[in-house]
Amino acid sequence: MTEAEFIAALRGLPLHPGARGLADDVAIVAGLVVTMDTLVEGVHFRAADAPADVAWKLVATNLSDLAAKGARVEGAMVSYPLGDDGWDRAFLAGLDAALRAMACPLIGGDTVTLPAGAPRILTLTALGGDAHAPARSGAMPGDALWVTGTIGDAGAGLAIADGGAGPAELAAAYLRPQPRLAEGRTLAPHVHAMMDVSDGLLVDAARMAAASDVAITVDLALVPLSNAYRAYSGDRLAAVTAGDDYQLLFAAPGDWTPPVAATRIGGITPGSGLTLTDAGTPVPLPASLGYQHRGR
Amino acid sequence: MTEAEFIAALRGLPLHPGARGLADDVAIVAGLVVTMDTLVEGVHFRAADAPADVAWKLVATNLSDLAAKGARVEGAMVSYPLGDDGWDRAFLAGLDAALRAMACPLIGGDTVTLPAGAPRILTLTALGGDAHAPARSGAMPGDALWVTGTIGDAGAGLAIADGGAGPAELAAAYLRPQPRLAEGRTLAPHVHAMMDVSDGLLVDAARMAAASDVAITVDLALVPLSNAYRAYSGDRLAAVTAGDDYQLLFAAPGDWTPPVAATRIGGITPGSGLTLTDAGTPVPLPASLGYQHRGR
Repeated sequence: MTEAEFIAALRGLPLHPGARGLADDVAIVAGLVVTMDTLVEGVHFRAADAPADVAWKLVATNLSDLAAKGARVEGAMVSYPLGDDGWDRAFLAGLDAALRAMACPLIGGDTVTLPAGAPRILTLTALGGDAHAPARSGAMPGDALWVTGTIGDAGAGLAIADGGAGPAELAAAYLRPQPRLAEGRTLAPHVHAMMDVSDGLLVDAARMAAASDVAITVDLALVPLSNAYRAYSGDRLAAVTAGDDYQLLFAAPGDWTPPVAATRIGGITPGSGLTLTDAGTPVPLPASLGYQHRGR
Repeated sequence: MTEAEFIAALRGLPLHPGARGLADDVAIVAGLVVTMDTLVEGVHFRAADAPADVAWKLVATNLSDLAAKGARVEGAMVSYPLGDDGWDRAFLAGLDAALRAMACPLIGGDTVTLPAGAPRILTLTALGGDAHAPARSGAMPGDALWVTGTIGDAGAGLAIADGGAGPAELAAAYLRPQPRLAEGRTLAPHVHAMMDVSDGLLVDAARMAAASDVAITVDLALVPLSNAYRAYSGDRLAAVTAGDDYQLLFAAPGDWTPPVAATRIGGITPGSGLTLTDAGTPVPLPASLGYQHRGR
């Protein structure tokens, strides 16, 4: 089954009223924002990645979901499979550093034994409070589409971490994503829809369009690129289809200017689906809009 | 690292005030009881187990932690690794049945891709509300020690599921544990300490003694055995050191009689550690008190 088929089947199970139909990044339970993200060795991180980087990514990817809902970080629970001593100790040190850096206290979790030779599967549940929690389904015709930060750095960083040549700044974007918690807190009360860009700007924008039942246009020429990425390749199509950016994508009234650093990259109209333009001229969508779990 | 060493190290990380020092089965966050339990193929379930039984156990073991705190079930989040189609579909059907049977709505979760040939690692986070949430650290000298249900059935059931001869009733105790939610709701306001028996009656009683800084005595002759277990082997030491019972172990004032079916199996005195008696006569503790994760 693909991930989409599996999630569609899950929608037939008894759902919590705060589950948002399994169509958002988070659920709302008794006023808390809750999210769960899992990292799999060989899928979401490389076996060669430093354990401290894996710990960082585990915390950061979950807190990015809280950021997208404008939540105050309450804390995190971690499921950890005990493997070899050196990895475990390095992971612990990295987890300590990540939790401190992101002001995220540990709530609890579970520790299990990893079978010999098995790939690590790590799960974190993050809890947040005091959130306006804009859904990804709230984009409205007339809204402008915005994104924080720059796009494509982590995708280039993955290639660099894999042995390619390129600046350490881009590798760091892949290995140490920064959840946009402060931006999310500021934006959440004002936006119509918000989500984090985790699998690729285009696939995530398409998901917002589908959830909101609107058409979204993204203009390639407007997509913000870092100077490092421009020097590395400047490939805009690669940037908008690469994952792991963890920037915030949001829709807000067309006459509103966000009070945080963000770039207007497109707009929302009646209709459905995603349209790509380049300085206003329609261009075909690439075959792959981003990273999608395929199952086996 | 062993699980104990890892958890000791985790205590040096920034902890949430509701984390209970990582010394209880649950944490308390904004009035919610939260717990996370992970099942690993080859460790907590057998590769040959039916996917529906694995789904049942995943839900039941987590809700057992809520039961031990007297919580009303709010819902669950599931991290699921997509593997082969048949297993995925059977797991979904089993998850549906388990959630309905235990009145536990799905809140959300994450779906990932399982690398080819990798053992499945499944994590669930359960949330509960309205709980008195007695800790495992509240046992006091003068308390009596009680346990619900019968002990040892699941341990025998594992041997039977592995191909041994024996009644299906015992195999079912291993494959389909029943969280004691109603009993927990009734008991929680009255007891001093409560936890579920997951790794073995003796190891869990020893953990309650350590957390409460008291001495606990368990009398083998008082431990409740099912008729099926008596017919199967009746081995009391095997019963008290086997895991997966998911009964409730609780300490309550010596002059109090619980309003649910339960058996008084021992008592609490000043001091420390676990003492085993058989009809009042001290007997040596077995080398292993139950199942303990060892790491590698």
